[in-house]
Amino acid sequence: MQGTLLLRQALHRNADGVATVCGSRQRNWREVGRRVPRMAAALRGLGVKDGAFVAVLSMNSDRYLELFFAVPWAGGSIAPMNVRWAADENLYALEDCHATVLCVDDAFIDQGQQLGKNFPGLKAIIHIGDEPTPEGMLSYEDLIAANAPMEDADRKNGDLYAVFYTGGTTGRPKGVALTHSALCHASTAWLAMLPDVEDLSFAYVGGFFHFSGSSPIHYITMAGGTHVILPKFEPLSMMQAIHNHKVSNAVMVPTIVNMLISHPDFDKYDLSSLRTCVYGGSPMPEALMAAAAAKLPGLRFYQIYGMTETGGFATMLRWRDHVFNGPKAERIRSCGQPGPGVEVKIVSPEGETLGPRQMGEIVMRSDYLMMGYMNRPEQTAEVLRDGWMYSGDAGYLDEDGYLYVADRVKDMIVTGGENVYSIEVERALFQHPAVREAAVIGIPSKDWGEAVHAVVVLKPGMTATGEELIAHCRTLIGGYKCPKSVEFRSEPLPLSPKNTVMKNVLRDPYWAGQDRKI
Amino acid sequence: MQGTLLLRQALHRNADGVATVCGSRQRNWREVGRRVPRMAAALRGLGVKDGAFVAVLSMNSDRYLELFFAVPWAGGSIAPMNVRWAADENLYALEDCHATVLCVDDAFIDQGQQLGKNFPGLKAIIHIGDEPTPEGMLSYEDLIAANAPMEDADRKNGDLYAVFYTGGTTGRPKGVALTHSALCHASTAWLAMLPDVEDLSFAYVGGFFHFSGSSPIHYITMAGGTHVILPKFEPLSMMQAIHNHKVSNAVMVPTIVNMLISHPDFDKYDLSSLRTCVYGGSPMPEALMAAAAAKLPGLRFYQIYGMTETGGFATMLRWRDHVFNGPKAERIRSCGQPGPGVEVKIVSPEGETLGPRQMGEIVMRSDYLMMGYMNRPEQTAEVLRDGWMYSGDAGYLDEDGYLYVADRVKDMIVTGGENVYSIEVERALFQHPAVREAAVIGIPSKDWGEAVHAVVVLKPGMTATGEELIAHCRTLIGGYKCPKSVEFRSEPLPLSPKNTVMKNVLRDPYWAGQDRKI
Repeated sequence: MQGTLLLRQALHRNADGVATVCGSRQRNWREVGRRVPRMAAALRGLGVKDGAFVAVLSMNSDRYLELFFAVPWAGGSIAPMNVRWAADENLYALEDCHATVLCVDDAFIDQGQQLGKNFPGLKAIIHIGDEPTPEGMLSYEDLIAANAPMEDADRKNGDLYAVFYTGGTTGRPKGVALTHSALCHASTAWLAMLPDVEDLSFAYVGGFFHFSGSSPIHYITMAGGTHVILPKFEPLSMMQAIHNHKVSNAVMVPTIVNMLISHPDFDKYDLSSLRTCVYGGSPMPEALMAAAAAKLPGLRFYQIYGMTETGGFATMLRWRDHVFNGPKAERIRSCGQPGPGVEVKIVSPEGETLGPRQMGEIVMRSDYLMMGYMNRPEQTAEVLRDGWMYSGDAGYLDEDGYLYVADRVKDMIVTGGENVYSIEVERALFQHPAVREAAVIGIPSKDWGEAVHAVVVLKPGMTATGEELIAHCRTLIGGYKCPKSVEFRSEPLPLSPKNTVMKNVLRDPYWAGQDRKI
Repeated sequence: MQGTLLLRQALHRNADGVATVCGSRQRNWREVGRRVPRMAAALRGLGVKDGAFVAVLSMNSDRYLELFFAVPWAGGSIAPMNVRWAADENLYALEDCHATVLCVDDAFIDQGQQLGKNFPGLKAIIHIGDEPTPEGMLSYEDLIAANAPMEDADRKNGDLYAVFYTGGTTGRPKGVALTHSALCHASTAWLAMLPDVEDLSFAYVGGFFHFSGSSPIHYITMAGGTHVILPKFEPLSMMQAIHNHKVSNAVMVPTIVNMLISHPDFDKYDLSSLRTCVYGGSPMPEALMAAAAAKLPGLRFYQIYGMTETGGFATMLRWRDHVFNGPKAERIRSCGQPGPGVEVKIVSPEGETLGPRQMGEIVMRSDYLMMGYMNRPEQTAEVLRDGWMYSGDAGYLDEDGYLYVADRVKDMIVTGGENVYSIEVERALFQHPAVREAAVIGIPSKDWGEAVHAVVVLKPGMTATGEELIAHCRTLIGGYKCPKSVEFRSEPLPLSPKNTVMKNVLRDPYWAGQDRKI
């Protein structure tokens, strides 16, 4: 199965249905189906074929979405660039994949021009924004108007579809290379996991440059659904989008769900079309679930665990497992069971497969795994072994195959020879009524190797001392796991594009001039 | 993805849930999960590894179902034998795949012993029935009891999973070889097509030896559902099974649905759990849909078109397309649109791709296609060209990609240089109030090459002459399409295992000593 087939499936299922909504612009699948082969012809004219790369540096838009189909239609591969990265990180990515064409929107005209100067390999820069096209760039709409449609290049299963660059905030970017087969079969698996496959309307919160933000492009298209694209997330415009376009599905972390249901204008909009919320990164808090159930009784939650390297998803906590009482209440702390076609095992540092409830590295296998990291055979060999992806995450499985992600191995704290999983400490801190945000990191300690250190933001108007919080933790978790020190901040903690706290940012100042062992 | 993974997924999703129901016997997934690796060890002890074949000649049973997982777990491939075939046809199949082991149930002890004598390549015959195990055979349950579980042989994606023998009633059997990858990805696609993936309970009507009868083994297992196995179809036991095991899904052709809803004991059973009926082979009659809607309001119909060679399904007419009035009513005569991951095109005899509403050969492509016919490279090359499967069926696509199967090409009648698609003539005949069954075939004609000939069974107590029926057809279809002759029968027409009329059986006597050109 290859990427352009997904577009043809949308054309079959829903030619007259709305394909994309972007601001005030709306197109049906028939129109998108006419535009893509013309844009592909334009790209082909610029030399895009045989897997050549088209890089895209842009906020989400309908044109960006079309490129996910136009690029493979031309025979190329797509490389979304991280909108949060500095120009030199994106330059590194452009060079890494030898991009032939770069596409930028209005927000990235300057960076586009700078990249164009610094990377002479580019044959063209295409402007996909709404403002007038700058000098030296080609206009996306002009290219569509000027080109006759081309035949689908009909890429093969094993050909590269896309490269997603990750890791830029903590090190040199790594390009996760995904084939047509991986991406398309993962789309089928998504549809097999979700409760509804008819009349899907998906609102985007995350950026397309991140695979978790763009995988709905594929499975929603396969189902002939509607893509509702918000150029930037903002609770009010999200509520308007849900109301206006009968949005049924979204990927929203608990924080974002909370922003919606606690919004003062919540009652002004009809959000009852919302049926499926996929989230990841952190467990669903009980109070939030209760609040969501009261305000959006039709909404069902599905937690996903996975990484770009595993084709986006690996396990899923189904709606029926969102239970806070009774013998199965433990499961709400897990990220569910393997999704269709996925195997998960827990491996010891010695490479042994571990039994239920034994903590070790989470290792996954499926037909959705990456081919490898672009141009990095050694790093690929480190994580892809015998067809299994070594995640670098620590966790365990229970007797029923529910996966509990303890922590990122690198966020694990080794103190006095004991392993402390920061998430457990954070969970204890969150149970204190004054704590709004908390992140637990390891900082250097002469006595212990590392010491457990908490960074906390208190709720407005609430107070608590470090001693108080440490004493609170002692009532909940083992003494060696409790913070040795607490640091208070008034600003929100720094978030990654996945909306998880960037612990490296908190940790790095403490380790300046020293090497962390992990 | 490979076959034994499906079993592991059931263990994850529903270890304590009912896996198989067979007569009064019931097992949960945990038990099946314990039995399969032991049976695999027994098979391994008999030499089953590296793709060696285990043939199964049996009515449907829970043990037969377990073999679909135990055989690949051991490292072998499964070859279900056709229960309707004569011993020499099955002998041909056994020889064709060099079967290592044969499994038979009580109904096939005699044929098993005969095959054992005639095919000395067999290392063992395993008795999977409930009666005492005959002399010279091994007992399935004894083997499970005597063997410790083995590790999964962990077959690869491209390895052979199963060979289904087809075509035995019209020629020499052909073994359709399906890989793990094809079969497992088709299972994901099934789940992506169906409206519900939770709490599935499937009742079997068709035999496992036919791929359309056994494909639910795979997708229902993947979803952790329940297999309700009726050794033989019979309306009363089907209704009891639905009632007792809250059956949600079944594959039932319209004739069988009709048998249920018009059964005198219908009201004695609670069939309200039935949600999804998949059917194929013939369109859903409007009157039957109305009757079903009145009696089983929760039941949704999905028509499937496909063949063993395409991994079972290719297109699906969704529930929402089961509409008999308005501008889209035409679609009820189609078999729907391509399923997830499937492409369909219509090709002229010259190999050109045809446009909407142009009749030609139906050609399909997906990752679920067969590898080829066992030991038949020439016949494989004839139907598998450039990755496309040439179905031998005639049909056309409409503007929205709905596929209309006009007829099997070989059932097409060429009369006076015109092509007549028998289904069109049959549809006209069915509109006569006295007609209960009708099949239209081409018979030799000096004047026309072939002449259109109808074989008709009238409804009990009704009368009609051949002239009357021909005149009736003339009011509905072109003169050259109308039967030139009508033959009346009092017995039901002969049905294939797919419950379609075996036209070759009707046609052959007319062509004795002559070659049909098509």
